[in-house]
Amino acid sequence: MSGRVFGLGVGPGDPDLITVKALARLRAAPVVAYPAPEHGKSFARAIVARYLSPAQIELPIAMPLDAARFPAASVYGGAAAAIAAHLGAGRDVAVLCQGDAFFYGSFMYLFARLAAAHPVEIVPGVSSLAAAAAAAHAPLAARSDVLVVLPATLGDADLARRLADCDAAAIIKLGRHFARVRALLDRLGLANRAHYVERASLAAERVLPLAAVAAETVPYFSMILVHRRGEAWR
Amino acid sequence: MSGRVFGLGVGPGDPDLITVKALARLRAAPVVAYPAPEHGKSFARAIVARYLSPAQIELPIAMPLDAARFPAASVYGGAAAAIAAHLGAGRDVAVLCQGDAFFYGSFMYLFARLAAAHPVEIVPGVSSLAAAAAAAHAPLAARSDVLVVLPATLGDADLARRLADCDAAAIIKLGRHFARVRALLDRLGLANRAHYVERASLAAERVLPLAAVAAETVPYFSMILVHRRGEAWR
Repeated sequence: MSGRVFGLGVGPGDPDLITVKALARLRAAPVVAYPAPEHGKSFARAIVARYLSPAQIELPIAMPLDAARFPAASVYGGAAAAIAAHLGAGRDVAVLCQGDAFFYGSFMYLFARLAAAHPVEIVPGVSSLAAAAAAAHAPLAARSDVLVVLPATLGDADLARRLADCDAAAIIKLGRHFARVRALLDRLGLANRAHYVERASLAAERVLPLAAVAAETVPYFSMILVHRRGEAWR
Repeated sequence: MSGRVFGLGVGPGDPDLITVKALARLRAAPVVAYPAPEHGKSFARAIVARYLSPAQIELPIAMPLDAARFPAASVYGGAAAAIAAHLGAGRDVAVLCQGDAFFYGSFMYLFARLAAAHPVEIVPGVSSLAAAAAAAHAPLAARSDVLVVLPATLGDADLARRLADCDAAAIIKLGRHFARVRALLDRLGLANRAHYVERASLAAERVLPLAAVAAETVPYFSMILVHRRGEAWR
């Protein structure tokens, strides 16, 4: 009988922002898989490090941060096979997903390869979006607001068109795109309606006005929240 | 010295989808406030009922579900004053927010009235959006997807334009708007790329194809997830 796959959203970074449910699933799982960069530590594993037991089998999976630059088939096929081997032996596998499992994560590529042959449960998590809004003290959306999530990898014209036609926006995956996005928001007159949030919910969290950000230090885990019509909830 | 306000996202409905942090803040709070309909029970309170203690002071706040139909000043001014009275007496107040505190919730109206004079901490929560995607086994967004959140209260022309210009959409607050939205998705050829999710994460959760939904039974707490380009993560 196949083991089960648990796609666990472990939250945005603060270990206490894991849910009671994900924590229970995590502690009960004999195998814990997580995305890990080729060099350096796994962020998802670091979030839950305090909850892991030495008795658990750990399965780091080499997943590039920016999936758009890699063909999913080659990267995720091997990882799915490694997980499937444990499932075939009857062992449940918890796959750690920073933030929410289905919000721009890499888990969906494993899900696509495993769900047909194995039972899968997704435990939703607190997204970086929610954590950034909480950190900035800036509600994401109210009433009949249209909220749009925009990867910073989009071109200027695309970003500008979408920013002109929403009530609130979250521009995610900033990293090396920050300076260009800031210049765009300046041109659009939106810079003073934007909050920059970096590493939301972690000890290193920072909330800054756009003008105060040193562009060369902006990490991938940062975002800009824009309220086009000002603070409509007041 | 003023008590503190905690805006606690308690998650989408399953009591186990509260975070470890929100649960700790909830248990430590001498006063627990929550939105309550004029008739019937408070959903936010029901989510955390098992965690409450008889020693806690409960402060139900009459908040209309559809804030757009009520002037915020009259509804939230009194509630903020009632909370401020506890804060002034040095008591911390936990305000329960179903889902995430800053994602289309009513908490932001209290926040706007309390944050200037009192310390406020927002604890982000699992949104109904994340819970719906988990229930439907349908990732919300991948890679460079543009994700848009659309209240069903928008008109057809507005919804159609925005649905034509995104990769993924969540149409929220369906309720009595369901039949109209379904007809629109049919006309746009998107009905077969949509999942209907009702009461995500609750025991009564249902995931249905649009055609199988009885429009007259659709609750406010339901949404439609649309993947315009199909299941791009496969």
